[in-house]
Amino acid sequence: MPTLEDIRTAARELEGRIHRTPMLTSSALNERFGADLVLKAELFQKTGSFKVRGLLTKLLRLTAAERARGVVTVSAGNAAGALAWAARDAGVPATVVMAHTAVPAKIDAARGYGATVELVDGDLIAAYERIRDDRGLTGVHPFDDEDVITGHGSLGLELLEDRPDLAAVLVPVGGGGLISGVARAVRLLNPRIKVIGIEPAAADVVSRSLEAGSPQRLPGARSVADGLAAPVCGTHNFPLIQQHVDTIVRVSEESLVEATRWVMSRTKLALEPAAAAPFAALLEGLTVEGPTAAVVSGGNLDVSRLML
Amino acid sequence: MPTLEDIRTAARELEGRIHRTPMLTSSALNERFGADLVLKAELFQKTGSFKVRGLLTKLLRLTAAERARGVVTVSAGNAAGALAWAARDAGVPATVVMAHTAVPAKIDAARGYGATVELVDGDLIAAYERIRDDRGLTGVHPFDDEDVITGHGSLGLELLEDRPDLAAVLVPVGGGGLISGVARAVRLLNPRIKVIGIEPAAADVVSRSLEAGSPQRLPGARSVADGLAAPVCGTHNFPLIQQHVDTIVRVSEESLVEATRWVMSRTKLALEPAAAAPFAALLEGLTVEGPTAAVVSGGNLDVSRLML
Repeated sequence: MPTLEDIRTAARELEGRIHRTPMLTSSALNERFGADLVLKAELFQKTGSFKVRGLLTKLLRLTAAERARGVVTVSAGNAAGALAWAARDAGVPATVVMAHTAVPAKIDAARGYGATVELVDGDLIAAYERIRDDRGLTGVHPFDDEDVITGHGSLGLELLEDRPDLAAVLVPVGGGGLISGVARAVRLLNPRIKVIGIEPAAADVVSRSLEAGSPQRLPGARSVADGLAAPVCGTHNFPLIQQHVDTIVRVSEESLVEATRWVMSRTKLALEPAAAAPFAALLEGLTVEGPTAAVVSGGNLDVSRLML
Repeated sequence: MPTLEDIRTAARELEGRIHRTPMLTSSALNERFGADLVLKAELFQKTGSFKVRGLLTKLLRLTAAERARGVVTVSAGNAAGALAWAARDAGVPATVVMAHTAVPAKIDAARGYGATVELVDGDLIAAYERIRDDRGLTGVHPFDDEDVITGHGSLGLELLEDRPDLAAVLVPVGGGGLISGVARAVRLLNPRIKVIGIEPAAADVVSRSLEAGSPQRLPGARSVADGLAAPVCGTHNFPLIQQHVDTIVRVSEESLVEATRWVMSRTKLALEPAAAAPFAALLEGLTVEGPTAAVVSGGNLDVSRLML
């Protein structure tokens, strides 16, 4: 498990390479929810999501030999651009295995950052493993990895640097990557801070894992918050979530849609549905006490769905 | 015509009542357009658009008797919320005449700020004049008014306070309210600065007015940039545009849609199509030299059109 010093080291490595994203307030949101919210606007991060924090941390810690040979990941789309960007920034050749059916804009984003994109039909994981082994590449998991978790912890440090008075943190939950890093960081700094995760009821692999007492699989889960529809809870992430997260709240698909639209209309932030998860929970009646950070985790909306 | 001192006085009156909106940069936009752009993020303004600048200035300059009796305006929707907000802020009773067919969210916004909303069928202007005269209210035009223009000039002051090195300013154009105030302010401060307006080709009443040499009417004009589909060029606005604006560029509906989506995807700003007009012109090949401000005039998107 990463120590505070591990996370601080990662944060120093990231400094100047990624954005220090702003903490924003909205009187409209506070009035509606009767809360004292501060929004960590991570949608303004490089590539439009928090993912570059952990992935760049991972790439910067590879051996010289691993960096020279290059890395490979498999992605339904969201992690592809972030890995490709981080690899370019770190000077590491990157290959991304994606489905033929991936959103063209996401394929283009990965290519635009210089990654080799392998489009495959059928079993993505099998194709990924074959390419990794045939080409001698280092596989990078988008969230189930200690270095990735440590890098995501940098966001937790920023929350408490900017607002040391925070009483609670609301974090969207997919496979557990972001929340495991953030929870680790903020709890090491303030053991009394409340950490609440929010997960789609339709893709609730982390809630199920906590209930079962071990990381579960939920293949084929779908949600309007595509960034949260992870098929597994990470094995490295699970014990951190067990230890540091107070509760995971499940939210409906309807609330995710309503929260995305409502928060966009009031804040003018083009957030993606995954990033609206904390507000979906507040819409459904979640109450919070004291200054509360909501992590607006990304803004990679499919803008072709904006019918003008 | 407002003097620099008039505009500075208006800016001082507005200070603390409205937001000082940020100037943002985007490397993605600069790369795409080969430009040195700075975005005036006026979509974060109170009520989500620049309109409160001029309308609040107007209300603050009414006589005590006029303020006590109250004001009335007529709006297809966009100015309604801004006038209602400004009236509440200034402590002036407000009535807004809107069509029964107005977007419900815009009716709700005006009511939410405490305005009396009169929904009418048929001739909006006739209904507005009857209500104004029957009730002894002061009519407020959303753009064709010297005080409104002076208030909008405050945005021009901010542009040059934050970036004294600006060589050009790109401003969306509807009936001429925003650009007449901004052009007046920036040209009084720097007579060599270039001022370029951008207007939908489908709703080009200001371009037609300049070509004809007098303010024209264009009833029934429609554009995806609904905030720019003004039926008239203002008579107070026209001479300022003639004197201070270098050129007005017409853009297609297709470019407005593409620019809205593309700028949203790269900046994560939830801008409305009217605010995307400067980028539509750049997409169509407009070239600019030196540091250039683009006014992102508002973010009042119809979020129900985001199909998630």
